[in-house]
Amino acid sequence: MLRTPYYLIDKQALLPNLEKIARLRELSGCKCLLALKCFAAWSVFDLMSEYMDGTTSSSPFEVKLGRKHFPGETHAYSVAWDEADLLEVLANSDKIIFNTIGQLERFGEAASDHVRGLRVNPGISSSSFDIADPARPFSRLGEHDPERIGAVCDRVSGFMFHNNCENDDFDRFDAMLTQIEERFGHLISRMEWVSLGGGIHFTGEGYPLEKLAERLRRFSETYGVQVYLEPGEAAITDSTTLELTVLDTLDNGKKLAVVDSSIEAHMLDLLIYREQAKVAPDTGDHEWMVCGNSCLAGDIFGEFRFERPLKPGDRVSIRDAGGYTMVKKNWFNGVRMPAIAVRELDGTVRTVREFSYSDFEAALS
Amino acid sequence: MLRTPYYLIDKQALLPNLEKIARLRELSGCKCLLALKCFAAWSVFDLMSEYMDGTTSSSPFEVKLGRKHFPGETHAYSVAWDEADLLEVLANSDKIIFNTIGQLERFGEAASDHVRGLRVNPGISSSSFDIADPARPFSRLGEHDPERIGAVCDRVSGFMFHNNCENDDFDRFDAMLTQIEERFGHLISRMEWVSLGGGIHFTGEGYPLEKLAERLRRFSETYGVQVYLEPGEAAITDSTTLELTVLDTLDNGKKLAVVDSSIEAHMLDLLIYREQAKVAPDTGDHEWMVCGNSCLAGDIFGEFRFERPLKPGDRVSIRDAGGYTMVKKNWFNGVRMPAIAVRELDGTVRTVREFSYSDFEAALS
Repeated sequence: MLRTPYYLIDKQALLPNLEKIARLRELSGCKCLLALKCFAAWSVFDLMSEYMDGTTSSSPFEVKLGRKHFPGETHAYSVAWDEADLLEVLANSDKIIFNTIGQLERFGEAASDHVRGLRVNPGISSSSFDIADPARPFSRLGEHDPERIGAVCDRVSGFMFHNNCENDDFDRFDAMLTQIEERFGHLISRMEWVSLGGGIHFTGEGYPLEKLAERLRRFSETYGVQVYLEPGEAAITDSTTLELTVLDTLDNGKKLAVVDSSIEAHMLDLLIYREQAKVAPDTGDHEWMVCGNSCLAGDIFGEFRFERPLKPGDRVSIRDAGGYTMVKKNWFNGVRMPAIAVRELDGTVRTVREFSYSDFEAALS
Repeated sequence: MLRTPYYLIDKQALLPNLEKIARLRELSGCKCLLALKCFAAWSVFDLMSEYMDGTTSSSPFEVKLGRKHFPGETHAYSVAWDEADLLEVLANSDKIIFNTIGQLERFGEAASDHVRGLRVNPGISSSSFDIADPARPFSRLGEHDPERIGAVCDRVSGFMFHNNCENDDFDRFDAMLTQIEERFGHLISRMEWVSLGGGIHFTGEGYPLEKLAERLRRFSETYGVQVYLEPGEAAITDSTTLELTVLDTLDNGKKLAVVDSSIEAHMLDLLIYREQAKVAPDTGDHEWMVCGNSCLAGDIFGEFRFERPLKPGDRVSIRDAGGYTMVKKNWFNGVRMPAIAVRELDGTVRTVREFSYSDFEAALS
């Protein structure tokens, strides 16, 4: 049996997300690209690519990963391209999207045979975290000014907007898109394609998928553009668990269980955003704080309810551990790196990657 | 020339720290072990080991790294040992320190031929961050109760206290040590060795090293114990820079420069603790916000002053980038991983590790 900790990607649990994506594409005519910044476990790309159109990226390495492992379109975006990478990025992508007019001016010529786009920042967003808010003051993410953008419109065929973030409220999405139309509609109608980015939680329970599809179709028809979405979290929500074992228990005013993993090393966003992990079913009479095994005092997965008191050797399964976890995992404290396993559609579990001491040593020098 | 980004460890800049450590050891009789959780770039361990007694660790992999690359003593501590690792940890260490009485009871027998210790939590600390405060409510870090500890005293020969954190105030250290003595002195006198952990910033400018040495010597003599310190940051402070290149500039109400690195990927603590990086000399008429190249809106190194306006191709050197950086770097966004280079004592720069697309791909699966 595979030793914990490991991330377990369940293809069966991916399917409901992927089927909603496929349905949205069908109803709306939009194309959906997986955002590799959220999820880049390429061993399940075979399945995902049956339901999605390709990938989008944040760096040259992600461009290359998308091109190599995910059939379909490869969008290349980065906050700033480095000239040294440009040829390889062009060779491995179908579109290149510039974050600023400055970058477009510097590299647009070299990319003149390529489909080019520009990131536009509408100055509004749905983020509840300042550090994740692309519309924060002085944001470097995209061009703001319609006049300046208008002046370079003939050098690009598309725009990328990315201003949603875990947005599960269709009306809010709708209202923000209307604001985008009011401000940038005259420019959008000069484009051939528009990406509306990621962060729309349209695979969530009860999300009005049909309304979204209708809204996207209307947008597409109004301006004569191919619409793209770039789901990350929405594509993989609740598909992956982090499988752990309790190593020690203690009582320091609360019942504490220390597991063989660390939020800082393996589920970094819990620390950055000061959030709590999810455990299912999280019911029962016994409340325990599940703690990580790093030296960090605040290395805490959260407080959960269990049917029985925890003891060393017990297994704990952290839910919804696919997004922004494996792509940010690190060797903090030299904590054993979780393996990556895939539960195939027939139920068999296949270990796709294990990490050893040598990997730890080689990460340093 | 080595392509940016890269961490540059300057052996010449390590020396002042190491010489202070050597002086403290000489004056006080204490032993100093490098805390690998802070700094584990083993290519400079040859130099460091001339001035220090060994390493301390937070996990089995760190134990192994210390034993393999750092001559001298290897202390093995972990918040929770996993039975599966125990034999290897014992084989690679000189002392094993248990975080709880529970772990001591479970594994003490198997380690009966080994030097054993227990972590004691004095319930006081100098941390100004809740998440880094080992004395926070319900802390899992060590045993609190003198009575319970007294009952197992005959099964260990030493204690580890670790309650300082970036403490540059000798009087505060002194006062906390006095509180430890008042509470645990009768137990300490039954021990042969005591580690007072890390987090004492005794290599900083103006720190009263002699007073600290005298205090440690007195503590050592009062209780008849060998004292250990476990410097991390203090051993490597201001020895390392992160060398970057400006990729793009823009003006969105402030002058912004985007560099070829990301705080989330390469200097994670700036994000976790919402702190600003350091640039030298940070003077001049031009104020710029230096931003990372990841997708994160808050990926900002900080605002600094420069002699001239920044432009693409300019180099930026982030100071004091050695502690808790390389050990936490990760592949967020697939941002190019900084190489690691060492400036030898004769001034020559040697590249000791570069990372490629293959390393990124192999970090996932």
